[in-house]
Amino acid sequence: LSAMAFELRDRDLLGRIGRLNTKGGAVETPAFMPVINPVSQVVPPRRMREEFGCEIVITNSYIIKKHFSEQQELKVHQLIDYDGVITTDSGAYQILVYGGVETSPDEIIRFQQSIGSDIAVILDIPTGWNVPREKVEWTVEETLRRAEAALPLIEGDDTLWVGPVQGGAHLDLVERSAQRVGKMPFPIHALGSPTEVMENYRFNVLVDMIMAAKRNLPQDRPLHLFGAGHPMMFSLAVALGCDLFDSAAYALYAKAGRYLTTLGTMKLKDLSYLPCSCPICRKYGADELKGMFKGERVKALTEHNLHVTMAEMETVKQSIVEGTLWELMEARSRGHPALASAMKGLYKHRGFLERGSPSYKGRGVFIFDSVGLARPEVTRHLRRLEQFIPSVRQNNLVLISAPPKRPYNKTQEYKSLARRLKKELGDDSERVQICFYSAPFGVTPAELSETYPLSQYEISDPPDIETFVFTAENVATFVAEADCKNVTLVRGDDELDRWVTARCEDVCEEKGREIEVISRPDAWSEETIDELLSILKRNGKGEA
Amino acid sequence: LSAMAFELRDRDLLGRIGRLNTKGGAVETPAFMPVINPVSQVVPPRRMREEFGCEIVITNSYIIKKHFSEQQELKVHQLIDYDGVITTDSGAYQILVYGGVETSPDEIIRFQQSIGSDIAVILDIPTGWNVPREKVEWTVEETLRRAEAALPLIEGDDTLWVGPVQGGAHLDLVERSAQRVGKMPFPIHALGSPTEVMENYRFNVLVDMIMAAKRNLPQDRPLHLFGAGHPMMFSLAVALGCDLFDSAAYALYAKAGRYLTTLGTMKLKDLSYLPCSCPICRKYGADELKGMFKGERVKALTEHNLHVTMAEMETVKQSIVEGTLWELMEARSRGHPALASAMKGLYKHRGFLERGSPSYKGRGVFIFDSVGLARPEVTRHLRRLEQFIPSVRQNNLVLISAPPKRPYNKTQEYKSLARRLKKELGDDSERVQICFYSAPFGVTPAELSETYPLSQYEISDPPDIETFVFTAENVATFVAEADCKNVTLVRGDDELDRWVTARCEDVCEEKGREIEVISRPDAWSEETIDELLSILKRNGKGEA
Repeated sequence: LSAMAFELRDRDLLGRIGRLNTKGGAVETPAFMPVINPVSQVVPPRRMREEFGCEIVITNSYIIKKHFSEQQELKVHQLIDYDGVITTDSGAYQILVYGGVETSPDEIIRFQQSIGSDIAVILDIPTGWNVPREKVEWTVEETLRRAEAALPLIEGDDTLWVGPVQGGAHLDLVERSAQRVGKMPFPIHALGSPTEVMENYRFNVLVDMIMAAKRNLPQDRPLHLFGAGHPMMFSLAVALGCDLFDSAAYALYAKAGRYLTTLGTMKLKDLSYLPCSCPICRKYGADELKGMFKGERVKALTEHNLHVTMAEMETVKQSIVEGTLWELMEARSRGHPALASAMKGLYKHRGFLERGSPSYKGRGVFIFDSVGLARPEVTRHLRRLEQFIPSVRQNNLVLISAPPKRPYNKTQEYKSLARRLKKELGDDSERVQICFYSAPFGVTPAELSETYPLSQYEISDPPDIETFVFTAENVATFVAEADCKNVTLVRGDDELDRWVTARCEDVCEEKGREIEVISRPDAWSEETIDELLSILKRNGKGEA
Repeated sequence: LSAMAFELRDRDLLGRIGRLNTKGGAVETPAFMPVINPVSQVVPPRRMREEFGCEIVITNSYIIKKHFSEQQELKVHQLIDYDGVITTDSGAYQILVYGGVETSPDEIIRFQQSIGSDIAVILDIPTGWNVPREKVEWTVEETLRRAEAALPLIEGDDTLWVGPVQGGAHLDLVERSAQRVGKMPFPIHALGSPTEVMENYRFNVLVDMIMAAKRNLPQDRPLHLFGAGHPMMFSLAVALGCDLFDSAAYALYAKAGRYLTTLGTMKLKDLSYLPCSCPICRKYGADELKGMFKGERVKALTEHNLHVTMAEMETVKQSIVEGTLWELMEARSRGHPALASAMKGLYKHRGFLERGSPSYKGRGVFIFDSVGLARPEVTRHLRRLEQFIPSVRQNNLVLISAPPKRPYNKTQEYKSLARRLKKELGDDSERVQICFYSAPFGVTPAELSETYPLSQYEISDPPDIETFVFTAENVATFVAEADCKNVTLVRGDDELDRWVTARCEDVCEEKGREIEVISRPDAWSEETIDELLSILKRNGKGEA
């Protein structure tokens, strides 16, 4: 069991670009593994590698054992004629579908070792969907028992063994399963049974399942999401920390006349045009494709499906490098309202997302609506602000509506205010703390104006009500908790100004804090600044 | 000037698939016309047609005249070696860039006639951006004067002449320009000067400009959006009724190392992976592309840019056929917050969008958030509901929180209520009007439950606050305006129930209408229905 099997190269959110070292070679993750049917295959694995860039595939050791075990010295790479990395599954899927398999956990482990799998899976028990809780518990416990029992058999093995997590939609059981299998020395983990969740478009449940597993597994091991292969959900699953994917959908869907896109699935018979730039779709028209003989059509559709799937994984990897994985998720979430719901559900995981995300990707942040409030950049700013509060002590705190340009402290408006403070208040000006407020980040202390991403973001205008409420709440919390002498709020007459003022006044009344509000049509007009300075002079005097 | 030049084949929103008949052949719209540089061209027009499916291109007659006018019997199709449809521009772009041109309006019209352009443009005066209003007015008036002056020259001509609309971001001037040029017999119109608006990501301004033109032009003529060719905005512009696009961006960007995607522009030097499924990107890796000699690299990038651009137009056309153009716009709006802002701005154009949109595309409607409230399906339902109000007269109106499944009138919950009404109220049951309320459509009268799209939509859960407010407002308006005897509101305890109840109570108090509210945790429990029936019995008696 190789401890150094997985090296991280780059990260964004919980997604990562990694290098997985197997005895059959290194593979870059996140990676999609097309399922290879060892008995019949429309696109041969060799072509998949050469023309489609598939460096890793997955096939089923149980089916190989059933069909080919009489062969002497059977090797999986020769059998499917593929010299990249091969993962073998164990027959667990067949347990799910047929209720049982004609092999034992030990036998299928030894078989996978004998055929030379680079990555292999123990014979776990998939939880399934709509199963009574006792049955779910049994699948979890039996999978853990089998994982434990597998350890002596696989010790010292150069195959990378996968330790599966089960529990279905029972999150507490997923957590238990992940905690316990995570303590065993498996170099790779997998999350079982998401297929039915995905087929039913329960993407919010999928998010919670992945988070339950991910929180409880060692972060330095890759996580395989069993049976997931629709390009519409790659960005979401990778952002949550999944590294490996497998599916036969590219081929099965093609047989059923179904056409994959990054926004969903279409039926070829409904297509008048081909909404894709892949080599197949740029070569043929929709009518040509529909007019093909079945074999030819299935082959063309399979190739299209594989191109789209592989290209989406490249798109995901590029977005990790750039730091735009969140934006890609948002774009793909327009494929179905259930994906958009799953995005809304990320808010409850924002703390975990923030802790796992790299702190600086250099790239401007795009905020489209309140879904973006769950972004690590927002959570991180609010956390940082809590540590800023002590420095406000003994000061006159001024909260002022942010000027229209960024960075705020480089604007003419702010520079002119700073000059007047210095000139008219003298030494007292050092006891004035200026903070700006704006959506969605809330409070920006003047000296942090250039901190990433406070001047490197774009927000879609106008913000939604949730964003106003969130911003106002965070500004009010800051005001209420600031350990300072006097608070002056300088507001203009925008919607944000109204939300912030109302919430600050409420919270200050609750906490018994005095707050003075300067309310004018323009927060930065000369009259407003005159009024602010006269208040600060008066407050300054009181202290001298 | 052919009146039958443009035939409509299919529609969605204000977008349409059309057939434009020119003397050089028929072209399907919406169409992107790559700008052909007659002097040097990386991808030859012949290859564009054969390998990229470009059935129409655009080139510049002014440049041709400058470089090649000494040639005898000069014909544009031979000059650029292309046998598809050729549009020629007039040099107006050169006026914008260089301030003037060395030709006259009459001369360049005759020149375009002589070289055999299939579609041609008069020498208009582009408005430009950040220009004083008097100058804008002059560009509008001078363009109109030139359009008028062109008419005798082009009468009986088999070239399709384009009558441009100018006015820039001055919407009243765009309207005036469109109204007046729209009265002239041009078979095609064009909207000028959007390039700078697009380069500055002022997509909300672009929306208003297109709407100002579109409202005032004959709907049966195609509209060309001058200089627009970024695939990220095709779905938006087509949805607003633009049919023709042209740009040199695919080539100019390639020369500058820029890589187009449907979500924006990237720099090749920033790419570690190629986020695209086109033949170029599936053949090469990012490093291979970066390592190419300049000429080879520019050619590969040009081909990539052209593939993406052409494929996006196919995607747009497929979405028109399916009725999913709105969903495609939403997906693309995640390319930049400014595009998302433009989507938010569609709400003010919802009436015009609704009047122009086909009423039934058969496909389920996806509502992601309050941006979807501007959809024609929502506007149309509210309009239809106004006509429904008279039928409520003399009835007991029951507004009840919609059951969880659709169509509402086929649920067990409703059927059981209907049975009890019949049994316990007898003839009086015919005087009871049951209406459901739900987000975002508001009121669904029981008998309209199956009307499209009231049972054919998916809404992302939970709805945003704007959607709750919108729904509550529409329900309250319905209640207040319903000409009925008694109103009973049956609510559960969801967020929507709270918004609807509060708004209905407010509006009823304002209008002096009595409303009885049954408020229980579950709007469909037996106890709730018991209470409703006892109220209806009492109300029934009062009438007998």
